[in-house]
Amino acid sequence: MKIAVLGTGMVGRTHAGKLSQLGYEVVVGTRVVIATKLKDKPDMMGNPPFSAWLKDNKKVKLENYSDAAKQGEIIINAVKGEVVVETLKSLEQELSGKILIDISNPLDFSKGMPPTLFVSNIDSLGEQIQKVLPRTKVVKTLNTLNAYLQVDPNQLANGDHDIFISGNDAEAKAKVVGYLKEWYGWKRVIDLGDITTARGAEMVLPLWLRLFSTLKKPMFNIKVVTE
Amino acid sequence: MKIAVLGTGMVGRTHAGKLSQLGYEVVVGTRVVIATKLKDKPDMMGNPPFSAWLKDNKKVKLENYSDAAKQGEIIINAVKGEVVVETLKSLEQELSGKILIDISNPLDFSKGMPPTLFVSNIDSLGEQIQKVLPRTKVVKTLNTLNAYLQVDPNQLANGDHDIFISGNDAEAKAKVVGYLKEWYGWKRVIDLGDITTARGAEMVLPLWLRLFSTLKKPMFNIKVVTE
Repeated sequence: MKIAVLGTGMVGRTHAGKLSQLGYEVVVGTRVVIATKLKDKPDMMGNPPFSAWLKDNKKVKLENYSDAAKQGEIIINAVKGEVVVETLKSLEQELSGKILIDISNPLDFSKGMPPTLFVSNIDSLGEQIQKVLPRTKVVKTLNTLNAYLQVDPNQLANGDHDIFISGNDAEAKAKVVGYLKEWYGWKRVIDLGDITTARGAEMVLPLWLRLFSTLKKPMFNIKVVTE
Repeated sequence: MKIAVLGTGMVGRTHAGKLSQLGYEVVVGTRVVIATKLKDKPDMMGNPPFSAWLKDNKKVKLENYSDAAKQGEIIINAVKGEVVVETLKSLEQELSGKILIDISNPLDFSKGMPPTLFVSNIDSLGEQIQKVLPRTKVVKTLNTLNAYLQVDPNQLANGDHDIFISGNDAEAKAKVVGYLKEWYGWKRVIDLGDITTARGAEMVLPLWLRLFSTLKKPMFNIKVVTE
């Protein structure tokens, strides 16, 4: 199975690296391949340039968004929140009929720290993506925790904590639950309902950001205690 | 210690009843005492009229907001979200110098179900309350779970789940953590920081509402898993 990961930031790299290690064919999508390859300075978060990362992940291919989306049988969306909708809208054709696993968050860093959300409450990024990709099965998940935990939940409490899943297509959600288990070892995935329930999952971020500040570490997650 | 509970809905009743059973002097505040007493029909949520509840909780006194706020040494705010700010603003004098435990949520039922939030993301109800009550120590907590669990957390997983606390006054927060333990048995209270962190706790509600719909029961809570 060929997996396309859209986005070259730390979240995209973490998924691409893990999936490549697992033996999947992985293609990472970026806006302009040569520009991404020529970057030689750390980004604003201090992450090394993509080309340095690529040297340690030689099997991963880098393509422009359109070619990556075309090649991917399954798509993981890790494009930066603020440009997600315009980026994915331009890929409507390439993504048609496919499952897109949306792990992005609508974080707005323009008003200082901690970031706020540029869409919330009466709408969500998951819904906006589904709206511009009407023929794609958008499944929102994994956005509520740190990327290293996303791809390796069992390093924390032996995986005894939860993620959520939202989407309009029940079959696509069931497949994604299967991938999350097969790829990363996720045992606990709570189906919240249709894509509008992504509002609930995305609005966890403001709490996550305060917990990160309080706990002084990113390796935590929430568990829904029911009994 | 005399405790004032503002609000006669199910949340206010649950706290008032529990505290009265524990032997505290409890006064419940309402807008117009005689109107509350004369109500003889269930409310829109199907809860019995307050007067029926009062018969089972004979030690609880009912007063107008001003008299209740005056008498209370500690105040619990369980006024309906949409009228919280105007109600509390009118009590600035009575609440001056006191700790107000704000357990309310900014739920907006006017746009259908599930409710949305009428303030979120760049502000919170906790902050709005602190703004209109500058001489009161506003402590936000308990808003992230069902009222029956708020007052009896040990009925679920032996209390192994979390609540959050936000407020500008460290001493007031420490006192409230003590009350939560003494009154209700809370063992796990996470201090998120100043009152602006109430945004994080209040924005949990959209997730809570979807979980309620998925789990088909209100007796659940989240636990922050850290190791």
